[in-house]
Amino acid sequence: MQDQRTTDEQWMLRALVVAKHGPELDANPRVGCVLVGPDGVLVAEGWHLGAGTLHAEAAALEAAGERAAGCTAYVTLEPCHHTGRTDPCSRALAAAGVTRVVHAVSDPNAAAGGGAAWLETQGVVVEAGLLEAEGEGLNRSWLHRQRTGRPWVTWKLATTLDGRSAAADGTSQWITGPESRADVHEQRARCGAIVVGTGTALTDDPQLTARYPDGSLFARQPLRVVMGQRELPAEARVFDAAAETVHLRTRSPREVLAVLAEREIHHVWLEGGPTVAAAFMGEGLVDEIVAYVAPVLLGRGRQSVSDLGITTIADALRLEPTDTRIIGHDVRITTILEESR
Amino acid sequence: MQDQRTTDEQWMLRALVVAKHGPELDANPRVGCVLVGPDGVLVAEGWHLGAGTLHAEAAALEAAGERAAGCTAYVTLEPCHHTGRTDPCSRALAAAGVTRVVHAVSDPNAAAGGGAAWLETQGVVVEAGLLEAEGEGLNRSWLHRQRTGRPWVTWKLATTLDGRSAAADGTSQWITGPESRADVHEQRARCGAIVVGTGTALTDDPQLTARYPDGSLFARQPLRVVMGQRELPAEARVFDAAAETVHLRTRSPREVLAVLAEREIHHVWLEGGPTVAAAFMGEGLVDEIVAYVAPVLLGRGRQSVSDLGITTIADALRLEPTDTRIIGHDVRITTILEESR
Repeated sequence: MQDQRTTDEQWMLRALVVAKHGPELDANPRVGCVLVGPDGVLVAEGWHLGAGTLHAEAAALEAAGERAAGCTAYVTLEPCHHTGRTDPCSRALAAAGVTRVVHAVSDPNAAAGGGAAWLETQGVVVEAGLLEAEGEGLNRSWLHRQRTGRPWVTWKLATTLDGRSAAADGTSQWITGPESRADVHEQRARCGAIVVGTGTALTDDPQLTARYPDGSLFARQPLRVVMGQRELPAEARVFDAAAETVHLRTRSPREVLAVLAEREIHHVWLEGGPTVAAAFMGEGLVDEIVAYVAPVLLGRGRQSVSDLGITTIADALRLEPTDTRIIGHDVRITTILEESR
Repeated sequence: MQDQRTTDEQWMLRALVVAKHGPELDANPRVGCVLVGPDGVLVAEGWHLGAGTLHAEAAALEAAGERAAGCTAYVTLEPCHHTGRTDPCSRALAAAGVTRVVHAVSDPNAAAGGGAAWLETQGVVVEAGLLEAEGEGLNRSWLHRQRTGRPWVTWKLATTLDGRSAAADGTSQWITGPESRADVHEQRARCGAIVVGTGTALTDDPQLTARYPDGSLFARQPLRVVMGQRELPAEARVFDAAAETVHLRTRSPREVLAVLAEREIHHVWLEGGPTVAAAFMGEGLVDEIVAYVAPVLLGRGRQSVSDLGITTIADALRLEPTDTRIIGHDVRITTILEESR
């Protein structure tokens, strides 16, 4: 016999798995819901497919019909309690006769929150925090935006092992290899926006899309964002038809993030150059760094990270590695800032 | 039924395993030998425990006695054919009636080589190159010294993610964490010598020993080598009783390696500083870099790698990553120079 805790965890794992049917880039979080009868048998499951579609709980309740009565609902996120595009899930669960709700992550959204407390007033048993870390991981950037009001910012850094981005004569093609470049495109595709400065847009004229190695476009493209005061020519590649583009005429990272949060974007992929990156770093607005480290030594040349105003070791920006792997001939290191953990 | 190739591989794997009973740091290579009878049953095995002891083949033959007749010998390294501290293994195998010899790696040693060819003149069937890569890995640095006349050189690099070894004001304690420092001591213990310049010896006064985190010494210590013209005070910590030390009054990496090769050292752990490292790099005498990358950003400060005379990207020193892992709060990246593969 398994104890209740083990059983609960198994159903929550199932809810976490079905939640991943939802889109990573949506304005709404990914949520999964599993309804289990009093006899311990799966009754129905549901997941959220993005803004404007049924919430996970509603989808599961619809599939369960009358069999929802007496069920335990395992939900990866606390059921919402506000009337938005759909009716509140809290009321729907109670109305269907669900007697127990177990959720992984509490809803940080002030407008939507309060579902658990309300359910308890209706006599529903509520348990919070089961597999919370896994539930957090499912919607890390969405939760970050809910809690801080700004998107999660991942800075892409490409550097040699000795901290260079170009040789002394300015040559830099190619410091990182084709496998790293393909990986960058995959990472771009998982973000809501790509941000560069006008300097990069003018110098490199990048298309800033997410592309497969053969050059074809991923089905969904992040918003292309160029920040800075300088004018961009209408024929710049960022203005082609491959994706939407905005030019934000500001040097303030905070203003850029406010605009993007307003558009319900929760994950920003920051591609520099060094001036823009240093501006974000300087204001403490980088949450994560994905560094593509080419095992190349140059000895001198252009620095991959520009002056951050740090003069002594105690002020150094310290990160925590979460992953490292060999990608082609390079090494990718993912690190997060300690305060973003 | 397994085919002969599969069976041969299994016995060679066994020989590779027993070879690891031998010491990694010895003047002699690690070798394992497995004798298998005509009925496919293990008869005896042997391994080499270092200079002055029985060779692996001799140990296996001694254990087998008369049962060696008709056996196949699986040996990780081609049997030697010269009379050194022991009689040649080639003659001993033939005399014992071994009818087939399978070896992984051919002996690169001009004096000892020729065993396979001689065995064939005696009517023994010889097959070379089975699991050759694994056999190479067993004695990578020993083989390197045999082939090139100089030890394999591993350069230890400690750097921030942006290529710094100290902040602008010179402070650097501690860029890498205690787990990385413990790992450095383990790596030191696996080398025959640690090399630093007089600059490092005078500035940091390091003990240059391999120590456990509690400060106690590993049982076997590498030779401590300080290179450079400057005088060292007699009370310098490198001259304490913990290990042997030599001060080589030269700035030439090639001269240092020649002295160490003469002492039958085949793996050198180079700890810098940057001037000494750049001298080794500049002469193409670094085979491997073990980089401890602290996920720390400084923006400016002392560079972890000094000028290598490289001005354009085509001349960059390119390495190949062989391993990367998180060690404590740091990331260790192991890379080898392509010409050392």
